[in-house]
Amino acid sequence: MMGVELLYDTPRLEEKLMIEGLRSMGVTVTLTNVNTTPLLIGEASTDIALVRVMSMQKALYSAAIREAAGSKTINSSTTLVLCGDKILTLSRLMAMGIKVPRSMVVMGTESAEIAFRQFPKPFVDKPPIGSWGRLVTLVNDAATWRSVLEHRQMMQSQQLRTHIVQEYIKSGGRDIRTIVIAGEIVGAITRKSVGDEWRTNVALGGKTEPIRLNGEIAELSLKAAEAVNGDCISVDILEDMNTGELYLNEVNGVPEFKGFMEATGINVANELVKYIISVMKR
Amino acid sequence: MMGVELLYDTPRLEEKLMIEGLRSMGVTVTLTNVNTTPLLIGEASTDIALVRVMSMQKALYSAAIREAAGSKTINSSTTLVLCGDKILTLSRLMAMGIKVPRSMVVMGTESAEIAFRQFPKPFVDKPPIGSWGRLVTLVNDAATWRSVLEHRQMMQSQQLRTHIVQEYIKSGGRDIRTIVIAGEIVGAITRKSVGDEWRTNVALGGKTEPIRLNGEIAELSLKAAEAVNGDCISVDILEDMNTGELYLNEVNGVPEFKGFMEATGINVANELVKYIISVMKR
Amino acid sequence: MMGVELLYDTPRLEEKLMIEGLRSMGVTVTLTNVNTTPLLIGEASTDIALVRVMSMQKALYSAAIREAAGSKTINSSTTLVLCGDKILTLSRLMAMGIKVPRSMVVMGTESAEIAFRQFPKPFVDKPPIGSWGRLVTLVNDAATWRSVLEHRQMMQSQQLRTHIVQEYIKSGGRDIRTIVIAGEIVGAITRKSVGDEWRTNVALGGKTEPIRLNGEIAELSLKAAEAVNGDCISVDILEDMNTGELYLNEVNGVPEFKGFMEATGINVANELVKYIISVMKR
Amino acid sequence: MMGVELLYDTPRLEEKLMIEGLRSMGVTVTLTNVNTTPLLIGEASTDIALVRVMSMQKALYSAAIREAAGSKTINSSTTLVLCGDKILTLSRLMAMGIKVPRSMVVMGTESAEIAFRQFPKPFVDKPPIGSWGRLVTLVNDAATWRSVLEHRQMMQSQQLRTHIVQEYIKSGGRDIRTIVIAGEIVGAITRKSVGDEWRTNVALGGKTEPIRLNGEIAELSLKAAEAVNGDCISVDILEDMNTGELYLNEVNGVPEFKGFMEATGINVANELVKYIISVMKR
Repeated sequence: MMGVELLYDTPRLEEKLMIEGLRSMGVTVTLTNVNTTPLLIGEASTDIALVRVMSMQKALYSAAIREAAGSKTINSSTTLVLCGDKILTLSRLMAMGIKVPRSMVVMGTESAEIAFRQFPKPFVDKPPIGSWGRLVTLVNDAATWRSVLEHRQMMQSQQLRTHIVQEYIKSGGRDIRTIVIAGEIVGAITRKSVGDEWRTNVALGGKTEPIRLNGEIAELSLKAAEAVNGDCISVDILEDMNTGELYLNEVNGVPEFKGFMEATGINVANELVKYIISVMKR
Repeated sequence: MMGVELLYDTPRLEEKLMIEGLRSMGVTVTLTNVNTTPLLIGEASTDIALVRVMSMQKALYSAAIREAAGSKTINSSTTLVLCGDKILTLSRLMAMGIKVPRSMVVMGTESAEIAFRQFPKPFVDKPPIGSWGRLVTLVNDAATWRSVLEHRQMMQSQQLRTHIVQEYIKSGGRDIRTIVIAGEIVGAITRKSVGDEWRTNVALGGKTEPIRLNGEIAELSLKAAEAVNGDCISVDILEDMNTGELYLNEVNGVPEFKGFMEATGINVANELVKYIISVMKR
Repeated sequence: MMGVELLYDTPRLEEKLMIEGLRSMGVTVTLTNVNTTPLLIGEASTDIALVRVMSMQKALYSAAIREAAGSKTINSSTTLVLCGDKILTLSRLMAMGIKVPRSMVVMGTESAEIAFRQFPKPFVDKPPIGSWGRLVTLVNDAATWRSVLEHRQMMQSQQLRTHIVQEYIKSGGRDIRTIVIAGEIVGAITRKSVGDEWRTNVALGGKTEPIRLNGEIAELSLKAAEAVNGDCISVDILEDMNTGELYLNEVNGVPEFKGFMEATGINVANELVKYIISVMKR
Repeated sequence: MMGVELLYDTPRLEEKLMIEGLRSMGVTVTLTNVNTTPLLIGEASTDIALVRVMSMQKALYSAAIREAAGSKTINSSTTLVLCGDKILTLSRLMAMGIKVPRSMVVMGTESAEIAFRQFPKPFVDKPPIGSWGRLVTLVNDAATWRSVLEHRQMMQSQQLRTHIVQEYIKSGGRDIRTIVIAGEIVGAITRKSVGDEWRTNVALGGKTEPIRLNGEIAELSLKAAEAVNGDCISVDILEDMNTGELYLNEVNGVPEFKGFMEATGINVANELVKYIISVMKR
């Protein structure tokens, strides 16, 4: 049961760096492609399972299945549940006293009408699941709102039929992303939206830049990691341009960090390797 | 913040009995239809939220949103996460040392081939979500397996594209259902499949009968409730006809109990009301 | 084989009036609910099949199946194919020299970008299938366009993933609907959009009013009926407020006419009955 | 307007051979990728459009759009409509007096029950759309039937929710495929299913072999081509092993013929090129 199992679906630079880092420290790494390997619930070949599956749902299943065998998972299924669904993330953050954008959950057509009338425009509409900004819509008027509603009503998945109607924070087309590993903050960047795209996601052309960490951002990030019980997470923060207030927006339980490494020069994979080795020595 | 909020989507007999029961005890009950009322994350009008939403995903969101405001939820979002997805249920039960049918998780076409070759036939195939036995298929041969795989590959939801390949327990077309409230077992029934339908679900014609509780069934049920941290759950147990061994199969976090009440004469709603009132007095 | 078979799924006022009308003329009417009756290809109990199935796909299948047995269908599967998909309708109308709004078909993400850059804004975006204005979106800016694209990319059906990008005709929130039976125009109404809804569909609150037929509208309607070879159709026409030019926009092969009858006082069902009886006498 | 436009999405060997063949005869070939090029309804750059789009729905749209501009399309939208949906194919073939397997169309759960009781087992169940044998299921018992029904009920597309319940022709795991171009038969092969897979599709491992044409097969193929008005089609025929009777099963309007060329040595692309050139000379 010695060594580390790395579970993955699409191996990226992040995973390659981790594997190299672990192996260079003498750690045996077993690779498990969760698309080609059936996972028996309650079976595990190592004490530690590093869950690096891009599909959030598959990542969650991978973690739960290894925990059934008693493995320590990074991140745990508890963290992945909370980070994998934005309604659960926002609710947990609020429960822990962390400031988030005002958010209303809409699960039917009548409540959609009410939410539209009550919420100041523009507001952000998004489903609780999804990555890279997909389906996230800025709603300014009734026509856009109805188009979004009609489209989402046709989805098979109840998660995609559910709406998070969220306060639009005037952040100047910018957000802050930090990475936290084992209760310590690794660094921070900003992402800035580009051209006629208001979303900051790198997949949508968003540009990254390193920023200096201040105490407030660091504290908020650590509280978020604690709230979701995350060993290795990234955190998205919005800063209101006018008031300077910070809002915790999303937490990612299987963080990508290629762009973060390029922008900051920080070797995130190495930090994670160090943490895993410290866990192995316990 | 006094009183109880009952969150629902489709009011059934169960909900009506609870409302009557609570009101007859002088408790103020606020009704919230989650389809017609937008839910603001972090807002709650009562200290206790009774989550009786039939849609599992909506039930989970309702609980999480009320917990963000500090409400005690019955059941909690933690319980609803674990019960709402059969992979998470089985994994948690195993992690807690509870015997479940041998279960393999398949998340891709290659692993589907391997699982089919490895698993003794017939086996049960089901997606991790769903109620009333829907999509649960007994797989005997390659032709059935491929038909199921091809159909599920066309689903939008990753949950529905995921397979639980499960040992078929020879239980004689019968299973045992118990209800546990606040760490005490309320009673037990069996459900028996009817005609050419092998599934025992009442929605598929399954017939219910009360049974006498034995210590083993009671103990298993209580352990299951503890494993998912459930205040009010129902538990499905399979008994191997030949060996007499018991297997915990599913746990329901928003239990229906109309059929259970009819079969046993036990007033389940009343038990739940008593528990809620005891919580209010804490 | 005497008599008329009326095929339906959801019986509405229209169907009731037809049945009464036919029976009052001594015609035997057989009712077939296509949801509860399996249809054997090549079997028919009557010489004439009146296809009044609300689901366009089911209507098409019903007609084709009865034609396989040699029945005369009203409307024919040829008409229903052409009317059931807006790309096929527009293409046929153009092929027949009828003026339609300028329309571009987009079947991939790259072509979506090109269409957006080329087309004057606002433009109308709609999928080729669908009723009551559903999913029809007025696109003004890149943000709306991307939201629509991202949503439609997640649909299972290739028809719903296909876009018709269409010139927005400045018709003053009004369109004209005519009904044509057996090559003769029955009458005309206008539909006007209401409040903050730009679409004129009655299902979205649109208000109807009778209008006097002019020669141009009548001629255009008859040409449309001829183009799709329709025995009984309704036609949607847009009139440019500035230029007065008419554009044929949609043709419906299973027309609803309750609102039309209320607005005009014309007994449409009766016209259809007369036509059916004339066909029976041939 | 001289020359030929070849519309495609995924270029295969077939398309490359056609392009080479046409160019070697001095024909100018314009290539249009329908995924990257928006298609303006009513616009065309050539007199002849060769529709070689793998997606049946996109193929149909491509043909209709070019016909709106007056182009001759191979195949025409009429042919592609009839071949793109198996209910329309079977209905048209029957209407033209061609023998097909007995087929019942099921569009609701009640009719599904009736069809199951009435039809001899095993029967074939398939949706009206789809290629390479996908979702085609041999139904032997109630359990398989219910599993298929439950899965298909969850599909978004009405076409996928519709069932063709079809007589299982005892053809010895073998079918016959012919190709017809311009009213002349090009050749014939058989496809034989392999291993535990009963379906004959090459995509599922089916093995091809050339066969000698007999008059009956040739005549049936030509009648099928005429029934769907196809310029270039492939035809699937089932032969009952016991009675020797032939059944027309499917017609493909965008035929693949790589395997056919390998098995027979016949240069199908060349035959098509010759036909196109003859059309150009008219």
